[in-house]
Amino acid sequence: MVPGYNQTRRPQVHFSPAVNFMNDPNGLFYYNGTYHMYYQYNPTGITAGNQHWGHATSDDLYHWHNQPIALSPESPDEGIFSGSAVVDVDNTSGFFGNQSSSNPGIVAIYTLNTPSKETQNIAYSTDGGYTFTKYSGNPVIDINSNQFRDPKVIWHADTKKWVMAVALPTQFSVVFYTSSDLKNWKKASTFSHHGWLGNQFECPNLVEVPVHNSQQQNSGETKWVLVVSVNPGAPQGGSFTQFFPGEFDGTDFTPEDDAARWVDFGKDNYAMQFFYGTENKTLGLGWASNWQYTNIVPTSPWRSAMTLPRQYALWNDPVLSWQFISNPTDMSTIMNKNLFSGKVTKSKNIKLGDGSGAYYFDIYVSQDQGQATQRANFTFISSSTKEELRMGLLMDNGPSFFIDRSGTKGFDYPLFTDKFATIQYGGIGGWHVYGVLDKMILETFLNEGEQSATTTYFSNGVLDKFSISLDTGLSATVNVTALKSGWDQKK
Amino acid sequence: MVPGYNQTRRPQVHFSPAVNFMNDPNGLFYYNGTYHMYYQYNPTGITAGNQHWGHATSDDLYHWHNQPIALSPESPDEGIFSGSAVVDVDNTSGFFGNQSSSNPGIVAIYTLNTPSKETQNIAYSTDGGYTFTKYSGNPVIDINSNQFRDPKVIWHADTKKWVMAVALPTQFSVVFYTSSDLKNWKKASTFSHHGWLGNQFECPNLVEVPVHNSQQQNSGETKWVLVVSVNPGAPQGGSFTQFFPGEFDGTDFTPEDDAARWVDFGKDNYAMQFFYGTENKTLGLGWASNWQYTNIVPTSPWRSAMTLPRQYALWNDPVLSWQFISNPTDMSTIMNKNLFSGKVTKSKNIKLGDGSGAYYFDIYVSQDQGQATQRANFTFISSSTKEELRMGLLMDNGPSFFIDRSGTKGFDYPLFTDKFATIQYGGIGGWHVYGVLDKMILETFLNEGEQSATTTYFSNGVLDKFSISLDTGLSATVNVTALKSGWDQKK
Repeated sequence: MVPGYNQTRRPQVHFSPAVNFMNDPNGLFYYNGTYHMYYQYNPTGITAGNQHWGHATSDDLYHWHNQPIALSPESPDEGIFSGSAVVDVDNTSGFFGNQSSSNPGIVAIYTLNTPSKETQNIAYSTDGGYTFTKYSGNPVIDINSNQFRDPKVIWHADTKKWVMAVALPTQFSVVFYTSSDLKNWKKASTFSHHGWLGNQFECPNLVEVPVHNSQQQNSGETKWVLVVSVNPGAPQGGSFTQFFPGEFDGTDFTPEDDAARWVDFGKDNYAMQFFYGTENKTLGLGWASNWQYTNIVPTSPWRSAMTLPRQYALWNDPVLSWQFISNPTDMSTIMNKNLFSGKVTKSKNIKLGDGSGAYYFDIYVSQDQGQATQRANFTFISSSTKEELRMGLLMDNGPSFFIDRSGTKGFDYPLFTDKFATIQYGGIGGWHVYGVLDKMILETFLNEGEQSATTTYFSNGVLDKFSISLDTGLSATVNVTALKSGWDQKK
Repeated sequence: MVPGYNQTRRPQVHFSPAVNFMNDPNGLFYYNGTYHMYYQYNPTGITAGNQHWGHATSDDLYHWHNQPIALSPESPDEGIFSGSAVVDVDNTSGFFGNQSSSNPGIVAIYTLNTPSKETQNIAYSTDGGYTFTKYSGNPVIDINSNQFRDPKVIWHADTKKWVMAVALPTQFSVVFYTSSDLKNWKKASTFSHHGWLGNQFECPNLVEVPVHNSQQQNSGETKWVLVVSVNPGAPQGGSFTQFFPGEFDGTDFTPEDDAARWVDFGKDNYAMQFFYGTENKTLGLGWASNWQYTNIVPTSPWRSAMTLPRQYALWNDPVLSWQFISNPTDMSTIMNKNLFSGKVTKSKNIKLGDGSGAYYFDIYVSQDQGQATQRANFTFISSSTKEELRMGLLMDNGPSFFIDRSGTKGFDYPLFTDKFATIQYGGIGGWHVYGVLDKMILETFLNEGEQSATTTYFSNGVLDKFSISLDTGLSATVNVTALKSGWDQKK
């Protein structure tokens, strides 16, 4: 195992830094078999501040290799804030004249935060993203504002232009810029005062997404999605991420409607970013924390983890309108021993093994006809402390699906909301509940990923039992499988 | 005291029915010194169903007189669903030809729910709203839909027309109709897919509202507000109410922007309705419950209460954008003995008296310069059970204001969310926190009503102590006053 990754609350299949504080994912890109993830990182402390770009690489998004810091500030009053990265295969930037086409250059686009303002800057890498040189002509965009950040750049094939989405946070606005060389940017349009405003907009991401014509089936069509993170002032408190389905023509984003929609019904999924360069798959991940409590949660010597890597699609659900479907990316490289597989009626206690401490669970619940008010409980329990992390279906009002972290006792704080719920009106042949439990993160998916929740929790005892109890009239097909640690070498 | 209003959890300054189940306020109107409130009512049970229009009257909105049921279904498979009432001073309907102008007719507009469909119907009252005759030409609007309900009618002076807002719930739409006689209605426009969608839209309300140019100061201008309730699928679970500021020209509502905004950061304020006939004041109230748990909360022999009556205004806050300011209407008729008035540093325990059990609290918190991370706690405590209902300011992230009902132990349910929070970035000369504690309802207002939260709670012991504790660097000016019961005769 990679040294330093064996603490009681250390996630085993979610990325976290070995030490110190991490927040937003930055510069996600994929090229030639390797996923690169940069992230907001304080290399000198366990709370936010002194922002650098940390770096890690992976070939499956579960086994990560920590890399040296990729971007550092030049002085103590600078911060390298969030941004993105692209593969400049055609050397549009001119930085990579001497490189072979099999080793294209990487350009990082980030916000430089100083006491006086925030500007957009670029840096280039000739070694595939491991080391960067800051562009001598920085900043590439300067509007004399101290609220102007988080550039996410994509290549827009139809117009053959680079497109940047960047936030004017306190104006509740996303501004789109276009460029042909990543150095000279022209303002194209502004998307303003849509969705849930909170106190400010951050981390806009524009991405093309496959459209499904059912929860599972790809229609072959695509739409664009604009993702905007809000902090503070999310509807459940603090930070959250919302999405807008729509069309993008190279200059203007036009939403499908004027509705506000979240990507996650928990409250630990912020600053979601999508990987550049994954072709026709939309892959992304978020920061699995919330600014309301991230600086004080009880983990050491590090704080924060990323969500599971997920694959995304859009579906215009006939009841719930547009949903952003997400599912964990292929987990085959971390699947370990099956702990239980079979049908459950009434109740079942499943002992969780002593492996990495991360588990996959998959439950299909079926209901007899004519049974109205019923409940299905799925509870992770600590034998030693009797703490409980609860999930369940309530059939009497919608029905609802709930997550309740109030029974885990390692962290008590007025803003650490205990209970989350969503409508879960029915999936394919019943209700499908699946996901991953990983030491301090519960990630739950409903009905083929139509809804999902990321929920951090902090138990004092290890959750070593999974208890299922079903009211009369309900039955479930259950699969619980141990997961290998992503911090072990792959075998 | 009115008989039947002395139970441990019976609200004393909030309206509740003596027995059985209540939900949405209906038909709110004011005429000639009397406020009339109708409400969705099941006269035969303590859970929702068998919907009638209950009725109560008041001259101050705190002392209520229960009246006989105003509208009843004709058969067991009918329901008299939500709707509104108007004063037809000019006898536009033709129902009131023989009445004197000092005793104008009242017309109620409601949804008739049957197993096959929902239609809009009217009934008229020649005795000022106490008894109604259903119109022989009903329904007045029938679109052959079983999802078409909750008509709210206003008089639009500029176009000299009646205007109805009514919901197509599962289409996330509000439809506007116009009429000159309340009988013949013409579709004018549709407002669709704005704001938070959830699972369905209910109880639209269109109202003209004074615009303030600070938290407190009336600019003399007005705007229109469209209020839409959502259930299920609110961001905190279940039901909530959202508002859209905008303009209305008699046929079309045009929102100021495409943002989603709530009226309350708690989760017990649904189906808000505004009083017809209050001239240039905008008065309204909501149902202080949530469909996720309203049928099972531990009160008997009744369930549910209304929120405090509130006066509304709009303010375009320079930081938070449009806010719907609300404050309790004049409480002078229920103010009783002052229990504490003075400055608090460090901490103070205030004994709550043995009066009605309802209290008004008013706290201004000031902060010394240079003090960053601080906390102010305001906690209602039961001496007998040690239960706590907590509120507080956290200065370290925004700052935030929180409400935490997890310390009251009379009701435990996975959807009874424990913790609520909002940004509270600063008021006039500090932070202003005030409101009412009333046996099972905590109603909290921040910064001159710019934000508010309605929170039901169910403690086993009586909350008989109010504890204030302030970190170093904070001080507070505190006023706690006992309230008279609205169910006592006025003196």
